[in-house]
Amino acid sequence: MSPTIPEKQWAQVIEKTGGPVEYKEIPVQKPGPDEVLVNIKYSGVCHTDLHALKGDWPLPTKLPLVGGHEGAGVVVARGGLVQDIEVGDHAGVKWINGSCLVCDFCQQSDEPLCPKALLSGYTVDGSFQQYAIAKAAHVARLDKDTPLDAVAPVLCAGITVYKGLKESGASPGQSVAIVGAGGGLGSLAQQYAKAMGLRVIAIDTGDEKKKMCLEQLGASAFVDFATSKNVVKEVQEATQDGLGPHAVILVAVTEKPFQQAAEYVRPRGTVVCIGLPAGAYLRAPVFESVIKMVTIKGSYVGNRRDTTEALGFFRRGLIKAPFKVVGLSELQKVYDLMHEGKIAGRYVLDTSK
Amino acid sequence: MSPTIPEKQWAQVIEKTGGPVEYKEIPVQKPGPDEVLVNIKYSGVCHTDLHALKGDWPLPTKLPLVGGHEGAGVVVARGGLVQDIEVGDHAGVKWINGSCLVCDFCQQSDEPLCPKALLSGYTVDGSFQQYAIAKAAHVARLDKDTPLDAVAPVLCAGITVYKGLKESGASPGQSVAIVGAGGGLGSLAQQYAKAMGLRVIAIDTGDEKKKMCLEQLGASAFVDFATSKNVVKEVQEATQDGLGPHAVILVAVTEKPFQQAAEYVRPRGTVVCIGLPAGAYLRAPVFESVIKMVTIKGSYVGNRRDTTEALGFFRRGLIKAPFKVVGLSELQKVYDLMHEGKIAGRYVLDTSK
Amino acid sequence: MSPTIPEKQWAQVIEKTGGPVEYKEIPVQKPGPDEVLVNIKYSGVCHTDLHALKGDWPLPTKLPLVGGHEGAGVVVARGGLVQDIEVGDHAGVKWINGSCLVCDFCQQSDEPLCPKALLSGYTVDGSFQQYAIAKAAHVARLDKDTPLDAVAPVLCAGITVYKGLKESGASPGQSVAIVGAGGGLGSLAQQYAKAMGLRVIAIDTGDEKKKMCLEQLGASAFVDFATSKNVVKEVQEATQDGLGPHAVILVAVTEKPFQQAAEYVRPRGTVVCIGLPAGAYLRAPVFESVIKMVTIKGSYVGNRRDTTEALGFFRRGLIKAPFKVVGLSELQKVYDLMHEGKIAGRYVLDTSK
Amino acid sequence: MSPTIPEKQWAQVIEKTGGPVEYKEIPVQKPGPDEVLVNIKYSGVCHTDLHALKGDWPLPTKLPLVGGHEGAGVVVARGGLVQDIEVGDHAGVKWINGSCLVCDFCQQSDEPLCPKALLSGYTVDGSFQQYAIAKAAHVARLDKDTPLDAVAPVLCAGITVYKGLKESGASPGQSVAIVGAGGGLGSLAQQYAKAMGLRVIAIDTGDEKKKMCLEQLGASAFVDFATSKNVVKEVQEATQDGLGPHAVILVAVTEKPFQQAAEYVRPRGTVVCIGLPAGAYLRAPVFESVIKMVTIKGSYVGNRRDTTEALGFFRRGLIKAPFKVVGLSELQKVYDLMHEGKIAGRYVLDTSK
Repeated sequence: MSPTIPEKQWAQVIEKTGGPVEYKEIPVQKPGPDEVLVNIKYSGVCHTDLHALKGDWPLPTKLPLVGGHEGAGVVVARGGLVQDIEVGDHAGVKWINGSCLVCDFCQQSDEPLCPKALLSGYTVDGSFQQYAIAKAAHVARLDKDTPLDAVAPVLCAGITVYKGLKESGASPGQSVAIVGAGGGLGSLAQQYAKAMGLRVIAIDTGDEKKKMCLEQLGASAFVDFATSKNVVKEVQEATQDGLGPHAVILVAVTEKPFQQAAEYVRPRGTVVCIGLPAGAYLRAPVFESVIKMVTIKGSYVGNRRDTTEALGFFRRGLIKAPFKVVGLSELQKVYDLMHEGKIAGRYVLDTSK
Repeated sequence: MSPTIPEKQWAQVIEKTGGPVEYKEIPVQKPGPDEVLVNIKYSGVCHTDLHALKGDWPLPTKLPLVGGHEGAGVVVARGGLVQDIEVGDHAGVKWINGSCLVCDFCQQSDEPLCPKALLSGYTVDGSFQQYAIAKAAHVARLDKDTPLDAVAPVLCAGITVYKGLKESGASPGQSVAIVGAGGGLGSLAQQYAKAMGLRVIAIDTGDEKKKMCLEQLGASAFVDFATSKNVVKEVQEATQDGLGPHAVILVAVTEKPFQQAAEYVRPRGTVVCIGLPAGAYLRAPVFESVIKMVTIKGSYVGNRRDTTEALGFFRRGLIKAPFKVVGLSELQKVYDLMHEGKIAGRYVLDTSK
Repeated sequence: MSPTIPEKQWAQVIEKTGGPVEYKEIPVQKPGPDEVLVNIKYSGVCHTDLHALKGDWPLPTKLPLVGGHEGAGVVVARGGLVQDIEVGDHAGVKWINGSCLVCDFCQQSDEPLCPKALLSGYTVDGSFQQYAIAKAAHVARLDKDTPLDAVAPVLCAGITVYKGLKESGASPGQSVAIVGAGGGLGSLAQQYAKAMGLRVIAIDTGDEKKKMCLEQLGASAFVDFATSKNVVKEVQEATQDGLGPHAVILVAVTEKPFQQAAEYVRPRGTVVCIGLPAGAYLRAPVFESVIKMVTIKGSYVGNRRDTTEALGFFRRGLIKAPFKVVGLSELQKVYDLMHEGKIAGRYVLDTSK
Repeated sequence: MSPTIPEKQWAQVIEKTGGPVEYKEIPVQKPGPDEVLVNIKYSGVCHTDLHALKGDWPLPTKLPLVGGHEGAGVVVARGGLVQDIEVGDHAGVKWINGSCLVCDFCQQSDEPLCPKALLSGYTVDGSFQQYAIAKAAHVARLDKDTPLDAVAPVLCAGITVYKGLKESGASPGQSVAIVGAGGGLGSLAQQYAKAMGLRVIAIDTGDEKKKMCLEQLGASAFVDFATSKNVVKEVQEATQDGLGPHAVILVAVTEKPFQQAAEYVRPRGTVVCIGLPAGAYLRAPVFESVIKMVTIKGSYVGNRRDTTEALGFFRRGLIKAPFKVVGLSELQKVYDLMHEGKIAGRYVLDTSK
């Protein structure tokens, strides 16, 4: 009844920091007692994968490395201790590949903060191969009627913005400004926000993005940060009472938008920082932050619970992430486009090509 | 039955920004329909009073101005709409002299964020006079067995640090680092933290302060920021599991302690900024803040509820703030000492002298 | 510019407990210093009005009494202390007519729990008259483009179910069972739940209600409590993982649905009781409640914040309450229909007739 | 370096429901890959053990069964996957012996609600033997300077009351009534409450218990439910403002104290039910529960986090549970005393005797 698992598979491998990434055959691994082997059908490509290739983050990667952490596929083998997932089930391999489940952070459902967390496509091999290993307790459970190509980008980008929205503490009916609303993360964030009953003020630039935000993604207002004469004032005026949004989600952080966010956010509001630009600093004036009682917080990726919830919204048809499918063999081209900043929407790799 | 209210009284008056403050006789005001007149017996002197005198904050003061916002005394008259406080009751006049009680912030118990909030000794006359006016709904209720001199400093400093501790979200049994632990706010913060079941890591400098924190104020550890070779490491090691304190309270903010706080605070921990140094900026590295999911927030003063609670701890004998009593007439001397940084503990003015 | 206020007006007056209610002319009152006079245009009729008439609740009513607490109209006069609302503004007179704004409960934004709360149409005259008095701090603010007839029922029924949903703690994406889903409160509850991102399991009986819930109100499942062979099982199976809904809203409580709710609610879930049947008891088995960690709570009416939020959902077009308009003079007929249980949807009185 | 593990050991075994319990030699088991073997030094005896013996709970026990779930000892062996605990470490075997760590409840840190949770001394063998097995992820970590006899009762009774206090939502400075304050659970609850900054109103009967509560356990008031003419009034008057305690902890539930609790608890307050009397029902009047917005909730045992926290308070010397040590061979005598209701404090078994 178990599928035939080959001994060799195609993968994209980074031998040394800086790349290049090489498309070649490598052995298929066997899962440990608490692990599953997932036959990856599709994998999204995320900016983090480019950071892993370049090695420009403070945290060193495994080498040689198979990147990728938005893998969707089918469980083909499982270790002896695994009980709650069957061979044949659909599953997602995400950024948090595994964690200890014992430390103080795992005990409080903050698995992403586990000091022993395994990171797919970074500290362990990821989803840019046909057969990937992950801890059974951590793979995302996917319904069989969930399309594996469309769900791939949700496994990182979707979960991350959903987590950020939860961390913001904004409740249904309140307003949230999304900075970088027209980008990949931003457009997912808008859809999640709407599904959560929030009103969205989209902040980005250009008429094309404006149209997309207001007409397709359901934003109630759009502020063009490049042409606006007074971003702070315009964002505040876009809220019902002019006092500013209850929360701000920063999906693309540089110091300027960050400081503005602390200015236009409503008193008692929360600014959530999601992006990870190298070397950037959060910065806000003490006096105003104190007398407005502003909260600024960093949000990393979702835990297992957030994963299930974020996938639930997708399954109910509330989230649509535009994507293009190319073969796994074409990863280098995707990196090139990404490096040049030429990607709109998400690229998804078909591991069979 | 009503006490005799004189027509004139002694007060300390600032005629123009920059001072000086002048001790002279001025008329006693009559309370409006929703106000009370409080015969101030004692008033604490706070750094904010010095800012009001100097006019070095972004917010302009009323002029001429009677400063002071830590006034404790006896209600001697009340307006026609006032029902819940009697002539003869003891009451405290604090920073928030009144608020609209109708706006969005008042509706959510955030009266300090009310855009129409009246500020004692800043936008309305305060407690450096014998008879002060305040909104009945906002004066602090004091038991008759609460000593009016000792409670005065609690009315601003006590409430403020208590609020900061609540905002930190730290729960009983968790640890909190207090930066500037040996100062006036810091020593109150330590006592409140202990009464709330928290464990304190005191951060300050000098053997005298070390001794006071560990032996009198109940800190479980002391880190000397001036002599420590590695403040971050030392603070983290002072916690049970070495992962850092759950919260950090910054009562004296400059950029350096702030950045350190974001480094040594536990992942998922909260850094609360209370002090209001002119021109300072909060600053923290984005990458570490995000992957540690750190929260940074400003905490202003307490609301009415916090006031009642903070006074409750004082009444139960858990909070002791050292203070010296001098006459109201000697306010200028207190300002001089304050300006020179020569004050340890709090000065309290006796309005009868 | 101020409108002409007549000296006399038409009203429905109860002279003694048990009724009848009498349609007659009475004097128009003048607002106190912290009050407004509202020219009521429309008023909803609520079951509570019938209780007030009958006097069958533990709490005695004012006598003679003008009932009604869902009044929508225009401010025509205001007291001298009132600043934040203008003559000409539209406003709603709701159940909580006023509260002290000073007590412990008012301080924590729980105005409905204020021991001195004034209740419209119960302890003070309400909205079954052309000119009603209310505390300025408590009237609901209505946009001028909000239709005054349609909004009337939201002022009590809408706010109450919205509050219950908030109290349930259910978050977007989670499921909530609504018991009595096809009734007036239930159909509003379903719409609010949907607007808040919740999934609804409607519990009621009959094909007509089934159709309405599933096709018009957006429920994801319907359980017919009268024909179901196993309500508990059927409700649990209607949830994604079969473990039961995260929350249950009981808008029509009798002991049987209540006990069932404690059985089918998800472990760690919350059962919220909103209705006020005379003499009923909450009842749940200790063993199962403890090992499932179930929470059971009573939810009364919303506070001012809830009011603003509930009206916001209405204004954005997400809430539609079916209603019929009749003249104020016809109130007795409405009571008769209500007494006979023959009302579907809400009756709204036009005070000009 | 590993200790010598014998092949046989002494244990107390129940062969059939109803007992008796038999003291005999049985084989020592080997830990599975994710388990540890703990050389139990001491084990507390809890009422639940008597229920397991009698088989009078709805849930069936394993048979034959080694009871006990308050075992403290030394890790002597561990499975191949276990990394975070070493042979030689001290550990506690508690009620939750293991859970799946994957289900929805485990994912939200509610391991006690895991449908696959293993229960020590109930569905798997427990601590009434010299060598017990437990899942490594679930054993309590004990410092080596924690006395193993004194800590044993904390492993169930202490954690359970601590959890109940957390679930009550009462915050430092607020008041909590403890019903059954003079019993084993109650006296622990009082100590935890005090350590958490709460004020305690002890409810029980008899002068001896009154003295103990007020003089040794730090209660601020004592209400004798047997001699009081009006328990409700007396409890409310014992609070600062007469409005009743913010929370009530019911450690011994029968219907009468429960109904009273719903009456004297403060509006918006919480009644937490911890005890598990067979066949009892929670019961409260709907009208009063709704208009007071009372919350009633069941609290089961603590999760792993609560365990660490509860042990932290013990380690800091804030919790003292009186206990008597007898040999493991004498368990039947302890059961006899328990059955007769003759136990004050906790019995702890020494497994070497």
